[in-house]
Amino acid sequence: MPTKLNRIVGGVTAARGFLAATASCGIKRTGPIRSDLCIVYSESPSMAAGIFTTNLVKAAPVLLSRSHLADGRARAVLLNSGNANACTGALGLHAAEQTAKATALALGLHADEVLICSTGRIGVQLPLLKILPGIKAAANSLSKSRSAATAAAKSIMTSDTVPKQYAYEIKSGSGSFRIGGMAKGAGMIAPNMATMLCVITTDAAASAPFLRKALQEASSSTFNCITVDGDCSTNDTVLILANGVSKTAIRTSREKSAFCEGLHRVCADLARSIVADGEGTSRVIELVVKGARSEADARRIGSAIANSQLVKCAWAGSDPNWGRILDAAGYAGAVLDPDKVEIFYNGIPAAKNGMGCQDQKGEARLRKIAAKKEFSVIVDIHLGKAEVRLLTTDLTEEYVRLNLSEFSL
Amino acid sequence: MPTKLNRIVGGVTAARGFLAATASCGIKRTGPIRSDLCIVYSESPSMAAGIFTTNLVKAAPVLLSRSHLADGRARAVLLNSGNANACTGALGLHAAEQTAKATALALGLHADEVLICSTGRIGVQLPLLKILPGIKAAANSLSKSRSAATAAAKSIMTSDTVPKQYAYEIKSGSGSFRIGGMAKGAGMIAPNMATMLCVITTDAAASAPFLRKALQEASSSTFNCITVDGDCSTNDTVLILANGVSKTAIRTSREKSAFCEGLHRVCADLARSIVADGEGTSRVIELVVKGARSEADARRIGSAIANSQLVKCAWAGSDPNWGRILDAAGYAGAVLDPDKVEIFYNGIPAAKNGMGCQDQKGEARLRKIAAKKEFSVIVDIHLGKAEVRLLTTDLTEEYVRLNLSEFSL
Repeated sequence: MPTKLNRIVGGVTAARGFLAATASCGIKRTGPIRSDLCIVYSESPSMAAGIFTTNLVKAAPVLLSRSHLADGRARAVLLNSGNANACTGALGLHAAEQTAKATALALGLHADEVLICSTGRIGVQLPLLKILPGIKAAANSLSKSRSAATAAAKSIMTSDTVPKQYAYEIKSGSGSFRIGGMAKGAGMIAPNMATMLCVITTDAAASAPFLRKALQEASSSTFNCITVDGDCSTNDTVLILANGVSKTAIRTSREKSAFCEGLHRVCADLARSIVADGEGTSRVIELVVKGARSEADARRIGSAIANSQLVKCAWAGSDPNWGRILDAAGYAGAVLDPDKVEIFYNGIPAAKNGMGCQDQKGEARLRKIAAKKEFSVIVDIHLGKAEVRLLTTDLTEEYVRLNLSEFSL
Repeated sequence: MPTKLNRIVGGVTAARGFLAATASCGIKRTGPIRSDLCIVYSESPSMAAGIFTTNLVKAAPVLLSRSHLADGRARAVLLNSGNANACTGALGLHAAEQTAKATALALGLHADEVLICSTGRIGVQLPLLKILPGIKAAANSLSKSRSAATAAAKSIMTSDTVPKQYAYEIKSGSGSFRIGGMAKGAGMIAPNMATMLCVITTDAAASAPFLRKALQEASSSTFNCITVDGDCSTNDTVLILANGVSKTAIRTSREKSAFCEGLHRVCADLARSIVADGEGTSRVIELVVKGARSEADARRIGSAIANSQLVKCAWAGSDPNWGRILDAAGYAGAVLDPDKVEIFYNGIPAAKNGMGCQDQKGEARLRKIAAKKEFSVIVDIHLGKAEVRLLTTDLTEEYVRLNLSEFSL
C-alpha cells in the first residue's frame, strides 16, 4: 500500500494523547489583557527534539530548553507571548527555571520534562508573579479539543494577525499516525531561523536521534528558507514531541520517509503562513536561485536578493525591477558572471545575458505579475547546478509603521 | 610653519585650472527636462586615480573609466544622471565609448583622457541622440566660476534633495593648494561603497600612485563607512584629478600628510552629507563598534546593526531599542560574548553586561536622545581593541514610498 498523506483540521492536539490549554496573565505591560500563555502536554512519555536560534545572543528559554532536551525526552511545553525573556541575564534564566518548575509541579512531571518558549519584547524581566498563577490555571484546564489547539495557537501570537496551525494524517504500510503543529512569526524573520516559535506533536513512536535528524532536514528547506526582514532573533525555537500513542513505530526506511514527508508538509505549511503573515507584508514571493556554483553561493545570492531593501520596496510598488535583483546578486559575495544571468517572473523572462529582454508591452506584462499577491522569481546564474528555494516578502510602509517602536507590542 | 587647513566655499572649480559646465539633455524618460549632464575639465594635464564599486555587476562607465585610468592620467570627467548605463551589455559599453569620444573631440583631448560616470535607472540603454548634443553644449560653456561648480553638483542629483560640494585650502611649509569635490548619493548606499558618484579636483601636483593610495585611505574611513540601505550599487565611482597648477608639489612626508588630511576632510564632509540626505532619512547615527576581536569583526557587527531593518525602524520611532541592536550583533557572524556587551546612546549606558541598565526615568532620557536628528551609539564588545566608526540612518516610511517604483526616478 502506498503512503497516503491527508491534511486534517487541527494543530497541536490533532495527534492523539496531546492536550493544550491557555491562560491570560497580562504579561504585556500595555494594552488589554489577552490570552498570552499556553501549555502543550502529552499524556504519555514522549521522545523530543528541538532546533534553536543560531544567534549568539540566546534568550533564557532557549538555553533552558536546550539543556532539558539533552536526554531526548519531554512531556510538556510552556509558551508565552508578550515577553521574550531575552537579554535578561542570570535573573532571566532563574525566572525561566521557575516557570519550568511550576509547570512540572502542576502536571506531576520532573522539571527537565518541561520545555519553555517565550516571544515578545527583549530586555524586560519576566513578570513571574503574573505568570505562575497562569501556569496553574492552564494546567487545570488541559483539553484534547480542536478549540484548545486553536486557542494555544492564538495565545502565542505577537504581531501575527492570524493563528497558524496545520495537521496531517499519514497512512503507511504499518499503520497510521498524525503530525500537527502550531507556529508564530511576524517580524525578525530570517534564515536561520525566524522570530518564530513552533511546536509540533506526533503520535508516531520515534527515537530522539531520528526526530532530531528529521526536524533538521524538514527545517532546512522550510523554516530556514523564509525571510521577512533579515533579522534573526534571540528566541527562535522549533520543537517536536513524539508520544507513540498511535502504536505506529517509525522503523523501516519506508516508514521513515513517510514520516519525513508528513513532517515536511507541516513545516512547509507553517513556514509559508509565517511569511504570508509577515509584518506589513502585501506579497509572498517564491525566489528560486538556480545554476549556482555551490549551494552556499545559491544561498548567498538568494539571501542578498530576498533581504535587499530596494528589491523588496520595488515589489511593494509592483515594479518587476530586475536591475535591483541583479545588483543584489552582484554584491552577494558569490561567484557570478553578470552577463550570464537570467531572471524570470512567473516563468516569463525579464532579463537575459544580464540585460533586460522585454519591450514596453512585455514590461507591462511583468508589472502585472509583480502586482499579484503571490508570484515566483527565478534567478538562473548559469554557472553550475546548485539551487535554493526561498520564500520572502515585500517591504511596505506598513512594516516600518509597525516597527517604529516596540512599546506597542 | 604648521599646516593650515581652511574650508572655503566651492566645489570642483575651487582648485585652480578646473572648469565645469552643465547641459539639459532630457535623459530621464519622464518628468520635466532638467540639468542632467556635466563636464569637469582641467586646463592642464592632470594625474588621476579612481575607486570603483566592488559589485560584480559593474556598469559600462565603470568599466570604461577603469580602463582609461590605466595610465594614471585624465583631463576631463563626463557625468550624467537619469540613466545608469548598467546592465546594458555590449551596446551600453559602446554608448559609453561614444560619449567619451564626443567629449574628447569637443575638448581637443584623446578619448582615454576622459572618464565617465552615470547614475539613474539600471537596465535602460543610454539615449545617445539626446546626450551627444548636450556634450557639445557643455564643452562650449565651461567656466571656472563657483556657480558652474554648483550647477555641476546639481546636475548629478537623482533623489538627492541638496547638491553636495566642499572645498579646502591647505597651507603647508612649501606652499598652498586646494582640494574640492562634489558628490551625489541618496539610495543604494552601503559599504563598499554607495550609489554614489564623487569627483575631487586639486591643484596640487601629485603622482598617480600617491593619489590612488591617498584616495583609498580617505575612502576607507569615509565613503566605505556609510550606509543608508545596505544595497551596494553597480555604478559607485570616486575620482580624483590633480593638475599641479598651484605649483605645490606633494613630495615630503609632511606635504603628503597635509594633502591626506585635506583629502580626508573633503571626503568626510561629502560622506556625511550623503548620509544626511539619504532617501527618506530623518536621523544620522554615528555608530561606533569598539572592543572587537578584529577589525573584520568590528565591521561585521557594525554592518549588521547599521543595516538591520528592525534597528533602523526603531530609530525612526525614537525607540532606543538596545535589544534589537544586541540581537543584530548576535547574528553578525563575529566573535561575541553577549554578557559582556555594553551599549551607549550619546555616552549614556543603555545596556551593560548584555542587559538593560536603566530605570523608567533613565529610559525616558534615552528616548529623548533617540528622538534627536543626530546621535551616537557606541557598542562595546569588550573582547579586544578593534574599532570601526560608521555613519548610518533610520528607516522611514518615506524611504519605502520613495523606492516603491523607479518609474519616477
